[in-house]
Amino acid sequence: MGEDKDDFVVTPWKVEGIIDYDRLIEQFGTERITEELKDRMYKVTKEKHVLLERNLFFSHRDLGWILDEFEKGNKFVLYTGRGPSGKTHIGHLVPWIFTKWMQEKFDTTLYFQMTNDEKYFFEPHLSLDDVRKYTYDNTLDLLALGFEPENTYIIQDIEHIDLLYEIAVEVARKVTFSTVKATFGFDNSTNIGSIWHSAIQAVPAFLHSWIYGKKTPCIIPCAIDQDPFWRVTRDIAEKLGYYKPASIQCSFVPGLKEGGKMSSSEPMSAVFTTDTPKMVKKKVMAAFTGGRTTVEEQRKLGANPDICSVFKYYNFIFMPDDKDLADIEKRCRSGDILCGECKQILAPMMMEFLEKHQAAREEVKDRVDEFSAARLRDELRR
Amino acid sequence: MGEDKDDFVVTPWKVEGIIDYDRLIEQFGTERITEELKDRMYKVTKEKHVLLERNLFFSHRDLGWILDEFEKGNKFVLYTGRGPSGKTHIGHLVPWIFTKWMQEKFDTTLYFQMTNDEKYFFEPHLSLDDVRKYTYDNTLDLLALGFEPENTYIIQDIEHIDLLYEIAVEVARKVTFSTVKATFGFDNSTNIGSIWHSAIQAVPAFLHSWIYGKKTPCIIPCAIDQDPFWRVTRDIAEKLGYYKPASIQCSFVPGLKEGGKMSSSEPMSAVFTTDTPKMVKKKVMAAFTGGRTTVEEQRKLGANPDICSVFKYYNFIFMPDDKDLADIEKRCRSGDILCGECKQILAPMMMEFLEKHQAAREEVKDRVDEFSAARLRDELRR
Repeated sequence: MGEDKDDFVVTPWKVEGIIDYDRLIEQFGTERITEELKDRMYKVTKEKHVLLERNLFFSHRDLGWILDEFEKGNKFVLYTGRGPSGKTHIGHLVPWIFTKWMQEKFDTTLYFQMTNDEKYFFEPHLSLDDVRKYTYDNTLDLLALGFEPENTYIIQDIEHIDLLYEIAVEVARKVTFSTVKATFGFDNSTNIGSIWHSAIQAVPAFLHSWIYGKKTPCIIPCAIDQDPFWRVTRDIAEKLGYYKPASIQCSFVPGLKEGGKMSSSEPMSAVFTTDTPKMVKKKVMAAFTGGRTTVEEQRKLGANPDICSVFKYYNFIFMPDDKDLADIEKRCRSGDILCGECKQILAPMMMEFLEKHQAAREEVKDRVDEFSAARLRDELRR
Repeated sequence: MGEDKDDFVVTPWKVEGIIDYDRLIEQFGTERITEELKDRMYKVTKEKHVLLERNLFFSHRDLGWILDEFEKGNKFVLYTGRGPSGKTHIGHLVPWIFTKWMQEKFDTTLYFQMTNDEKYFFEPHLSLDDVRKYTYDNTLDLLALGFEPENTYIIQDIEHIDLLYEIAVEVARKVTFSTVKATFGFDNSTNIGSIWHSAIQAVPAFLHSWIYGKKTPCIIPCAIDQDPFWRVTRDIAEKLGYYKPASIQCSFVPGLKEGGKMSSSEPMSAVFTTDTPKMVKKKVMAAFTGGRTTVEEQRKLGANPDICSVFKYYNFIFMPDDKDLADIEKRCRSGDILCGECKQILAPMMMEFLEKHQAAREEVKDRVDEFSAARLRDELRR
């Protein structure tokens, strides 16, 4: 699924090549977020969001239905998550930032799943200790964004399996090997944990309904590579008496190298949330851009922001003001600014962002337990 | 696996035809229990057991090693279980009776797994409520045999998943779809829960070692149809730092109808532990025997106990005294006794057995919680 011989590959475990998002929407069978849907969201949020405005969140399933239900007073819950297989990089923060905005504006509950079992199944080099260490580490980055425990539940699959297993068992009876084979490209050499995991990843979409005994809509903000999971989840939802989860999907934050997304497995392509200012500067200065081979040529012909990773960072996070962005784009295309100069603008922005993030990350260290899904056990006992 | 075009099929979910146990041993790759091994067991137990003497427990894996370790002071734990998909019949009690004998004589701990998740995965007509109801019901039959809570832990997969999941995750990473496909005959239409279950069924073999942090031998007394699970479990045990579980395996208690084992799915073939005296009598009187078509013929030629279900019940449970058994066999072969008369001997024996069992079953009703594996959570917190 999501594979194309010619130029790109998108699965939950691999994103490669230059992605044609229109073709991806067609392949996955999702829909573009229309201006009308944005306006319906803004009617509630009373403010625009740059990630929606710039179409970085660009695809969805059933967003219109979620808004219909919301307007009728049937509030949704949010579900997103993280596979804790490494340190957090800036790319990971993008869907979390948007999730937090939705949580605040729609005043709703978030279930955040740390799929430590998934990462153990899929990455043979990781130990259980490793995935636990990354779970804690990644949680700090999530919480540094300012979530509050009142309406945020962090689920750790292995530690909170007692909250998940009964629903997972119901899901797993409805999903055949054929389905996961076709959806994820599994084969005979796939381990049975990886096969099982698609049941576990479905669970948070139904958890609120199950705990409170009230069928509740759920929407999943996430990068589009996770869509195959939601197809499986949606297929069986109604058979189990739940709503199909909706989703709202973003494109990938590009890496600092040419092509592909920001990836933990290529350290120079990714700016980690714990990088020092010196490391950030080094990575930014080495970043791939749309520049010309010589200064003379660039002054004369201008550069190409469309393929430039520096420009993409302005676009995703660091230049939320459209005027600033348009200005730098113009200077780039006209040859008025050279790539080195442009990097000298991005690097301090990133360093400042990370300085604040790292301080917030320290502050949440003694608050992690407050967010634990273990609290849901008390709800179940009621 | 365990399938033979000609005449019999043995898998964990299906036992059909006239089983050639010698061929089964060869197919499964287990070993016959030798007289020498029995004598080594009796050196410890100080008494013989009819199920061993009559070779009803007939097959094993690593029983010699278990006894070696025991002699060195490295005591084993016992593990067996039940898939709670229906009421308990007398056939189910046979391995449990033997397990209890081993527990007493070797003074050791038993982990008993109620695989309620398995039965939910494999039997589409059962609800979660159904498998829970049968779990409770079957537990009463187990406890009616006189187990004591001090050294008996009943694990309910769904309810005690928090005790099982971490080990199951480790197992599942080591087992591929190829393996379970070859071992259990799974195919693309198998649901992902059934595929996953082989990881869960491996766990109790390692649970004691995991909880107490001490590598402990484990032996599994069970019917031989469960052997495929232990092959998978044994294959990955050492990779995870555990001993391979040993096993000691019995043949199937025959049904009261012709061919096959006693089966809950054929009510007239099975005597349930909750059957009334009237029902027992009716089933026994309708049982398949090795009798002749006419009285005259039987008086003249005798009958055939080898294929007679009534005789098999004497053999398995109701005539532990070899003299009694030899006597009835002789009378049968000589034509001295007719099948109707013989059934009139078995029926009251069975009724008496069940009367006592049912009384014991009532008595344990308020003690079920004392046996719960939930107590192991306290061990883990230490």
